[in-house]
Amino acid sequence: MDLNKVTVRVPGTSANCGPGFDCLGLAATIYNDLELTLLEENSLTIEAHGDGAETIPTDEKNIVWKAARMILERSNNAEKFKGAILKMQNNIPMSRGLGSSAAAIVAGLTAANEIVGKPFNRKEILKFATEIEGHPDNVAPAIYGGFTISTVDRGQVQTFSFLPKLKLKLIVAVPDFPLSTRIARQVLPKSVSLKDAVFNIGRASMLVAALMQGKEKFLTTAFDDTLHQPYRTKLVPGMHEVFHAAKKAGALGVCLSGAGPCLIAFSAVAKHIENNIAVEMVQAFKKNNVQANALILDLDTRGAYVIG
Amino acid sequence: MDLNKVTVRVPGTSANCGPGFDCLGLAATIYNDLELTLLEENSLTIEAHGDGAETIPTDEKNIVWKAARMILERSNNAEKFKGAILKMQNNIPMSRGLGSSAAAIVAGLTAANEIVGKPFNRKEILKFATEIEGHPDNVAPAIYGGFTISTVDRGQVQTFSFLPKLKLKLIVAVPDFPLSTRIARQVLPKSVSLKDAVFNIGRASMLVAALMQGKEKFLTTAFDDTLHQPYRTKLVPGMHEVFHAAKKAGALGVCLSGAGPCLIAFSAVAKHIENNIAVEMVQAFKKNNVQANALILDLDTRGAYVIG
Repeated sequence: MDLNKVTVRVPGTSANCGPGFDCLGLAATIYNDLELTLLEENSLTIEAHGDGAETIPTDEKNIVWKAARMILERSNNAEKFKGAILKMQNNIPMSRGLGSSAAAIVAGLTAANEIVGKPFNRKEILKFATEIEGHPDNVAPAIYGGFTISTVDRGQVQTFSFLPKLKLKLIVAVPDFPLSTRIARQVLPKSVSLKDAVFNIGRASMLVAALMQGKEKFLTTAFDDTLHQPYRTKLVPGMHEVFHAAKKAGALGVCLSGAGPCLIAFSAVAKHIENNIAVEMVQAFKKNNVQANALILDLDTRGAYVIG
Repeated sequence: MDLNKVTVRVPGTSANCGPGFDCLGLAATIYNDLELTLLEENSLTIEAHGDGAETIPTDEKNIVWKAARMILERSNNAEKFKGAILKMQNNIPMSRGLGSSAAAIVAGLTAANEIVGKPFNRKEILKFATEIEGHPDNVAPAIYGGFTISTVDRGQVQTFSFLPKLKLKLIVAVPDFPLSTRIARQVLPKSVSLKDAVFNIGRASMLVAALMQGKEKFLTTAFDDTLHQPYRTKLVPGMHEVFHAAKKAGALGVCLSGAGPCLIAFSAVAKHIENNIAVEMVQAFKKNNVQANALILDLDTRGAYVIG
């Protein structure tokens, strides 16, 4: 066994979850794997397979390598390990609102941390990941798994992670076009009505409570949002029609995944209606001239981990 | 036993709980009792004892009687019972942010509903109470007890009530001046920054999660608020000093109770520091030339109920 080599698996994530703009997130059972070998010589080899592989930088600009280097620098190992071989197998769609960049960052941090002897715990990994990504929304569930609530207090990130008491299926409609988070942020207003803020505070609180105690009936309005989705409708053609189709097919709730363009519906596992919801969502997109495919996922319950 | 007579007990309540502006609430172990006797003859006798008794209308304008009459009308009993005798024992301080008006409404509704044979369940009582009060923040915990999350969706009120997993003491500093909710609302802006909205969404979600799972360490920042308390500081002299004093004495969190002027601190029961927190809060008020007394309460766990 090579002591300088490790493979980690990191889940895709969905931020916001409707009302929890910039606070709530979840991890899903779709993964990117990273095999990282740290080298003493100054040499960098990056191999990417899977979704968007051809667009991934294979030089010093690579975000996975940047994250790994942060660990090496902060653990005083940058002199020891100057190079690396990165092999990535990416299943998380890129630039679709499923946290592919957060997964890349968390993979680099987790793998490098493992090789140098785990000097940092998950809370420190969260701090580093937030530094790179700029916000904890996606990196938090990528690290902890489950649902997460994140707050930032004078630079200090705090994340509460929990597993809901009811089992949910996540049905994700993935449109065939990317959407940059930067553009999806530009359409948001700087200020909102106090009424809309109250709307989201109530829904986000209700969502957390209903998930924790497994009270399905409270979920039907708990995914509603007034703070970001209305402004992003124009960036995702057919958004409301897809929401409507998912609900009509039995989804408990539905929302934009992160900054989009993916839309995510939630259904109770017991009902076995996830296939139907998936078909209806894809068809509703199609009626709006958007090609999409659907992923039927579960909640990831463990977050990033070392698989070998 | 007189079939037309009943006595109900209703808890005082604290709305907002920091970040949960217009959404979160709790019920506390301080009660108003109402003995209601419905009369066939058109005669109204109202007797009030206790806090603010001298200011309570003793005619048709009395809010308890208005609430009781709503039940009589909606259950088609208004012709049968034209009058009443109301005897009130009020312990909840009036116009202090402890839900005395919500308690009055819920008392009238609950007592009349009991006498006419309970045609309405708690959800319907909540709907009626919200109609009278205008918002569910205080009436919801007064009816259900515990902590409550309330949302209003196209006129439909929904309340989720829960008991926290950790036992909390509630230390309430009650200033000697009243504050009208109307004035406390006038000082609020109509719009807020998206950043402040996000701040409160995260804290409210964190507060609910930490209470439900009994994770004390997450409570220390979870009571923080940016949406209403900063604007109400000028209405409650010494607010920040009292907050600071309570935290210094060991409170987990502290916030304005409803629209104020009461301030409420939360401490873990196990620590037996509630007396000290109470003394420090009263002294901090005193330094700001506000006379105050302190109440040390528990969370009420059952809401309004019939005691005889």
